[in-house]
Amino acid sequence: MSLYAQTVPQHIKMLQNLDRWLEAAVAYAETRKFDADTLLLARLAPDQYALGRQVQMICDNAKFCAARLTGTTAPSHPDTETTIPALRARIAAVIAYLETVNEAAFEGASARRIELNFAPGMDISGEDYLRDMASPNLYFHLTLAYSILRHNGVPLGKRDFLGSIALAPKA
Amino acid sequence: MSLYAQTVPQHIKMLQNLDRWLEAAVAYAETRKFDADTLLLARLAPDQYALGRQVQMICDNAKFCAARLTGTTAPSHPDTETTIPALRARIAAVIAYLETVNEAAFEGASARRIELNFAPGMDISGEDYLRDMASPNLYFHLTLAYSILRHNGVPLGKRDFLGSIALAPKA
Repeated sequence: MSLYAQTVPQHIKMLQNLDRWLEAAVAYAETRKFDADTLLLARLAPDQYALGRQVQMICDNAKFCAARLTGTTAPSHPDTETTIPALRARIAAVIAYLETVNEAAFEGASARRIELNFAPGMDISGEDYLRDMASPNLYFHLTLAYSILRHNGVPLGKRDFLGSIALAPKA
Repeated sequence: MSLYAQTVPQHIKMLQNLDRWLEAAVAYAETRKFDADTLLLARLAPDQYALGRQVQMICDNAKFCAARLTGTTAPSHPDTETTIPALRARIAAVIAYLETVNEAAFEGASARRIELNFAPGMDISGEDYLRDMASPNLYFHLTLAYSILRHNGVPLGKRDFLGSIALAPKA
């Protein structure tokens, strides 16, 4: 199984899905005559991150996953966005970055030892990092962003969450 | 990268995490003097599944993932649970089933063609099924279960969501 195929193209797809959810939020706000950016402060629990921060964390999870697995440095994005257009620009920037990461850069990624800021003196293999952290964290924040929008009435469904599925006519 | 290692042990871990969230919900309900089972009807949007159904879907996603990737049949569980103890018993049953699925059964799983009920006449490779459906769906329902509990005041944090992480002292 290819670590590249399980991450970079899938994460690009999920970022594109996220961008469409925000587009749907803007359209919904227009029909209901409210300022769409107020959604960025919505949260599901008082000690959980609001939507704006969830989107920033999705962007960071996706870019750091590619950078850590390839042993390279991701572009920096200060967390300064306060509007949906600014967040959509950040999503586009992360997609553009991921599109520069090619499969050859993933040579040896499964066994690569990865260090994480919160665990000094420790490391984890690329394969374990994907399983224990990168995938659960990315889908966690994606589902929270989606759920905050759903909770606030934005019309989205499961297919909007998943996006395209590589089903093909049976051979 | 091993499809077995990315799924079966990770899904067992996530089911064990889910079981602990439900245990925390019961403890919280006791301190606040309410019936913990009322949480099973809580939901974050009126057209989204409530907590009880989310737990059933997590169980099904985990068992069908293992069964589909190994070309075998998962045990059947009718969706009849209406209490937290009954749901925890179902989680335990799925964990017990997953513990019977061994790595050898995953031989050829990446390329295995998998058929899905909702797409007659179509199929998808095991690797694409994991990426496009099994992982996103499982974490989607896990995050919803977690978020419904958080939204209702159950004290949980991100480490409760992730569970153990295979960090090791640097060599």
